[in-house]
Amino acid sequence: MSDNKTVLVISAHSADFVWRCGGAIALHQERGYDVTIACLSYGERGESAKLWKQGGMTLDQVKAARRKEAEAAAAALGAHDIQFLDAGDYPLELDRDKKFALVDLIRQVQPTFMLSHSMYDPYNTDHMYATKVAMECRMIAQAWGHNPGEKVLGAPQLYLFEPHQTEQMGWKPDVFLDITSVWDKKWAAIQCMQGQEHLWTFYENVAENRGNHFRRNSGGQAGGRAAKYAEGFQSVYPRTVDEL
Amino acid sequence: MSDNKTVLVISAHSADFVWRCGGAIALHQERGYDVTIACLSYGERGESAKLWKQGGMTLDQVKAARRKEAEAAAAALGAHDIQFLDAGDYPLELDRDKKFALVDLIRQVQPTFMLSHSMYDPYNTDHMYATKVAMECRMIAQAWGHNPGEKVLGAPQLYLFEPHQTEQMGWKPDVFLDITSVWDKKWAAIQCMQGQEHLWTFYENVAENRGNHFRRNSGGQAGGRAAKYAEGFQSVYPRTVDEL
Amino acid sequence: MSDNKTVLVISAHSADFVWRCGGAIALHQERGYDVTIACLSYGERGESAKLWKQGGMTLDQVKAARRKEAEAAAAALGAHDIQFLDAGDYPLELDRDKKFALVDLIRQVQPTFMLSHSMYDPYNTDHMYATKVAMECRMIAQAWGHNPGEKVLGAPQLYLFEPHQTEQMGWKPDVFLDITSVWDKKWAAIQCMQGQEHLWTFYENVAENRGNHFRRNSGGQAGGRAAKYAEGFQSVYPRTVDEL
Amino acid sequence: MSDNKTVLVISAHSADFVWRCGGAIALHQERGYDVTIACLSYGERGESAKLWKQGGMTLDQVKAARRKEAEAAAAALGAHDIQFLDAGDYPLELDRDKKFALVDLIRQVQPTFMLSHSMYDPYNTDHMYATKVAMECRMIAQAWGHNPGEKVLGAPQLYLFEPHQTEQMGWKPDVFLDITSVWDKKWAAIQCMQGQEHLWTFYENVAENRGNHFRRNSGGQAGGRAAKYAEGFQSVYPRTVDEL
Amino acid sequence: MSDNKTVLVISAHSADFVWRCGGAIALHQERGYDVTIACLSYGERGESAKLWKQGGMTLDQVKAARRKEAEAAAAALGAHDIQFLDAGDYPLELDRDKKFALVDLIRQVQPTFMLSHSMYDPYNTDHMYATKVAMECRMIAQAWGHNPGEKVLGAPQLYLFEPHQTEQMGWKPDVFLDITSVWDKKWAAIQCMQGQEHLWTFYENVAENRGNHFRRNSGGQAGGRAAKYAEGFQSVYPRTVDEL
Amino acid sequence: MSDNKTVLVISAHSADFVWRCGGAIALHQERGYDVTIACLSYGERGESAKLWKQGGMTLDQVKAARRKEAEAAAAALGAHDIQFLDAGDYPLELDRDKKFALVDLIRQVQPTFMLSHSMYDPYNTDHMYATKVAMECRMIAQAWGHNPGEKVLGAPQLYLFEPHQTEQMGWKPDVFLDITSVWDKKWAAIQCMQGQEHLWTFYENVAENRGNHFRRNSGGQAGGRAAKYAEGFQSVYPRTVDEL
Repeated sequence: MSDNKTVLVISAHSADFVWRCGGAIALHQERGYDVTIACLSYGERGESAKLWKQGGMTLDQVKAARRKEAEAAAAALGAHDIQFLDAGDYPLELDRDKKFALVDLIRQVQPTFMLSHSMYDPYNTDHMYATKVAMECRMIAQAWGHNPGEKVLGAPQLYLFEPHQTEQMGWKPDVFLDITSVWDKKWAAIQCMQGQEHLWTFYENVAENRGNHFRRNSGGQAGGRAAKYAEGFQSVYPRTVDEL
Repeated sequence: MSDNKTVLVISAHSADFVWRCGGAIALHQERGYDVTIACLSYGERGESAKLWKQGGMTLDQVKAARRKEAEAAAAALGAHDIQFLDAGDYPLELDRDKKFALVDLIRQVQPTFMLSHSMYDPYNTDHMYATKVAMECRMIAQAWGHNPGEKVLGAPQLYLFEPHQTEQMGWKPDVFLDITSVWDKKWAAIQCMQGQEHLWTFYENVAENRGNHFRRNSGGQAGGRAAKYAEGFQSVYPRTVDEL
Repeated sequence: MSDNKTVLVISAHSADFVWRCGGAIALHQERGYDVTIACLSYGERGESAKLWKQGGMTLDQVKAARRKEAEAAAAALGAHDIQFLDAGDYPLELDRDKKFALVDLIRQVQPTFMLSHSMYDPYNTDHMYATKVAMECRMIAQAWGHNPGEKVLGAPQLYLFEPHQTEQMGWKPDVFLDITSVWDKKWAAIQCMQGQEHLWTFYENVAENRGNHFRRNSGGQAGGRAAKYAEGFQSVYPRTVDEL
Repeated sequence: MSDNKTVLVISAHSADFVWRCGGAIALHQERGYDVTIACLSYGERGESAKLWKQGGMTLDQVKAARRKEAEAAAAALGAHDIQFLDAGDYPLELDRDKKFALVDLIRQVQPTFMLSHSMYDPYNTDHMYATKVAMECRMIAQAWGHNPGEKVLGAPQLYLFEPHQTEQMGWKPDVFLDITSVWDKKWAAIQCMQGQEHLWTFYENVAENRGNHFRRNSGGQAGGRAAKYAEGFQSVYPRTVDEL
Repeated sequence: MSDNKTVLVISAHSADFVWRCGGAIALHQERGYDVTIACLSYGERGESAKLWKQGGMTLDQVKAARRKEAEAAAAALGAHDIQFLDAGDYPLELDRDKKFALVDLIRQVQPTFMLSHSMYDPYNTDHMYATKVAMECRMIAQAWGHNPGEKVLGAPQLYLFEPHQTEQMGWKPDVFLDITSVWDKKWAAIQCMQGQEHLWTFYENVAENRGNHFRRNSGGQAGGRAAKYAEGFQSVYPRTVDEL
Repeated sequence: MSDNKTVLVISAHSADFVWRCGGAIALHQERGYDVTIACLSYGERGESAKLWKQGGMTLDQVKAARRKEAEAAAAALGAHDIQFLDAGDYPLELDRDKKFALVDLIRQVQPTFMLSHSMYDPYNTDHMYATKVAMECRMIAQAWGHNPGEKVLGAPQLYLFEPHQTEQMGWKPDVFLDITSVWDKKWAAIQCMQGQEHLWTFYENVAENRGNHFRRNSGGQAGGRAAKYAEGFQSVYPRTVDEL
């Protein structure tokens, strides 16, 4: 491990991290953090409609194609590392061993903060399950009696990134991140997602409109920052500060 | 106006600011902010039981006594300024003129952030009314057509400070501030409140226990900061940042 | 004032108390409480459709008819007293004088507990306004500086009685009261409401079904109490007890 | 009054209706409804920054300019009527007379459904105030004792249109309307808002992304409707149907 | 499969569908839908107190008796089909195979809409578990990689039917269905439930009172529909429409 | 079984019952209840940092030490019985057999009321899991078909005791219990927790401040009870009463 600050992204399916926090990944990597992406599954069954529609596909072929796309996107974002836990999707399920593998990763990375999905998602129960597991494994990683002798985890923030239909998920952002300077990287990563081209413009619109929200909340017409693209996040835990 | 950053505290009654954000006032003043306290009323009718129990009191006498205590507390905290709007309490009510006076003050101070009460308080409707007015006047202060030519307000955060029974008010802190270094000042200010001695220990306990929450959320047993005293706040608006 | 325990019902319109807490009124009166009913308005404009449909009515005639019905219902329930504040309805609005008149009544009654409407009601804004005023006046009645020398109010519970469409109002009962022994009185009071006959069966059904909920929550098939009729209430404040 | 079905839009400021339900206005007008727009204020003080920045403006000049824009937008949408109540903004306040004027309008229009703002808006208290008034006046319009003899109001749905930062307002759409066929009209109306050009693209993005949500909720990749533009609404009251 | 529209009811125990959506079943069947009922368990352990109290019963006997009642009720409602998954109750638990069997059924039926329990139920965790499974299996049925080649599911609405104590479950109906025309069938089906006779009147009262809510929300005293019986439902997903 | 009333505490880890409801245990035991404590785990992995930091520990040694502390604390409180289910922690998981063992205990105790954790806890997923299991096993214990012939459970209240950061857990107390008379016992029990000395003062502060809330809610400055120490609880189910 280097002395860099670190980030851990926990993505239910292998493409989620691109749309939802690609900007945060690229930006923090540029700022000297090492960002590790953990894909719990490839989204091989449920988020690969385009591949399955081609016909003649096997599960392994779909997984391989999805992995390739995700690796390309991670590279486009300059991410430090990407890991695949291959836990299966639709439904995503982690048994005790898989959970402990995720705990191992969390302890290895020792993230300054973590990123995962919204708490609730009636469209995609894998998403909310991923966050449930993220909270559970964060707790296990803090236990002095789990693999005694290993460095235990502190109290990293868990940010919930933007889901597809925010209001239906009860997701409310409390922080907007200016990603204007890394938008090119996020856009390049988005274009790696050949199987989900129907979402490209959607997430470009999201980034532009979150830019508007950034401008509004940083001062609006009386001095707001001229951000063009932004991402929003919801914090699970309170912050601890020396200045408000 | 100097070039200092500024803070505006909107306190329904003249003692509220002491218990609820005395530490934030002292700390930010030390860090070079100019902190202005606006007391909407003296709490002369509803929060001066001890004085009224003495008998023979007039409303003006109670107001004067409460003002003296509040000024002493503000001085103990090193606050830049304290203003009294004398809008009456139990119930607190600001007519259009009083609201515009508050707007004037907001524009004069141009606060980097504001502080007020919880959104809901079934025990003390003055408290929630104060926050309603704070939000309304923040909006008016942002209007280019209100006293055109004046410097309009940007988009300062509004922090809700800690109410007396947090869970009954639906108040949830999302940020803890370490006030260990200024605890002596807050304790001195608390002791200025001769009429409410029954609350001194209560708020000392609160500060200690929020210190525990600070330690827990900044890392706990694996590296948390050794804060002894803290204050909690709930943010109304999302933050805009360059780094999570 | 006798030494009896007391109850104060705050009813937006003059018939509300019958449907929503007629059983509680009759029961507590029988148990030795003195129950006072405060009707903030007669419901003359908005809840007297049957009278207005007759044609040729004046506002005063409608008020008089409604008052007569309410007095008859209060008598049927055996209520200690019924007061009419005549503050107008649709919309109900209490100015400072009317509020202070209600404070006077609260202090006079010194209620062990109070009863009013749900916190929210998108169908009938008078209802939620009545509860807002009840909370505000409860606070003023507690102020030592309001009419110094008078006996100030303690901390009576405020129970919210059952609204017409509970789920739309976000009303959640946390206590069920067995009114089987006084059902005859409630049914008699209901029948005093000649202008709203379309609601009689509705509230009989409600009472029966709340009886079922009483049985279920007192033990169900393994020992629940055989209540036939019940009323539900939501508490605003926590209870203080010596035994759970 | 013709026999057409009717719609009433209650807009706090004179431009709100364009961004938030311009599509619904144009679409229902085309479908044979008569749509009336009620602008409670011109947004002259708080939503006319561009005009005030020009300098040398009077309040009347700003009002006139805003009115002209709103009338042009209403024409572009083909709206049946637009009314201005001129109640003032920042803060918006309707006294009893103004409220009764709005009740008169509601009764005149006899809307099949109404449209207004979100229930909560910490950025713009005028918006939530407008909805509060809409609910109150809907209730008054239903009162048989208000101007006896007039045709009283039934029970029209109240749809809350999309606010600027949906998640901060706790707004959750439960219905999406396909506005693809009238997008040209909405876009034309948007372009009438010369003073708020910074919002044009924002609301184009919103319309496109709500189109995506429409496709997703009408069947997604397995048969969703190919809507390109949509608007979202939150219902206040339950629907009554003969088929789910 | 015929060309009929279809409905799928997911019932935790074999009697739930009768009380909670018997009217919807009968009505839609009459309107030409094919309604399939899936009973996840017989409620053999937890909802058959009357049978167990007789003594000398085996689990299989209870299941058989419950099945017979459910089939009779389904017949009384004219339901197209009733299926029993026999997954056990108190607690209800579906392993991966059982879930996939439910997915098979969903895909076979291709429902226009689905019906299940409330999201939360502290009295009966089987109920909320059933809805959790319904949402999860709906998602799996939409996955192109699940049994590739099968017809995948679109985006059917999921309606949550009325639980026993609505307010305790946080259930809020957003649609009322007039079931007056099929009340006789629902009442006949209810009477098939010999083991739960204590609930007959309860649900008759519910149906009558929901009829009142239907009248109120369809126009009230100024034109509401004269529904005598109704059922209420809460929608999980937004609707997509061409007209509000 | 004696004829005493009984209480069942369900504690995720072996120390939770001390901080969170030690006063309730001691008080009800003194009042003639038999209080049984069920520790689902020892907290051996996640809540024994001090022991693990000593080095050279085995899981069994930690369990034994934790058990000893818990037994000492239970004795200090005078509890009737303490049971250890040893289901493991971080994460806590009860399979069907463990759940049925808990059901057996519930039926054996036949509690008048139960106590467990808050519904939500993002810091400690074991806590919310324990409450989920408590609700599930309460339901199973009520099933006439579970071990037919055994005495089934009635409908005991489930009180949620105070979590460590109340606001983050969405926990809202609706009842305060005066524990002044048994504070010495609770303090003695707290001191048995040698491994968590950093929490002693924290929970002393909590008890004192809940005492203040007790005084405030029982009458405040106009007659509140002079409680010095109290505990707060949130009820899951409504109460059934004969008097409000």
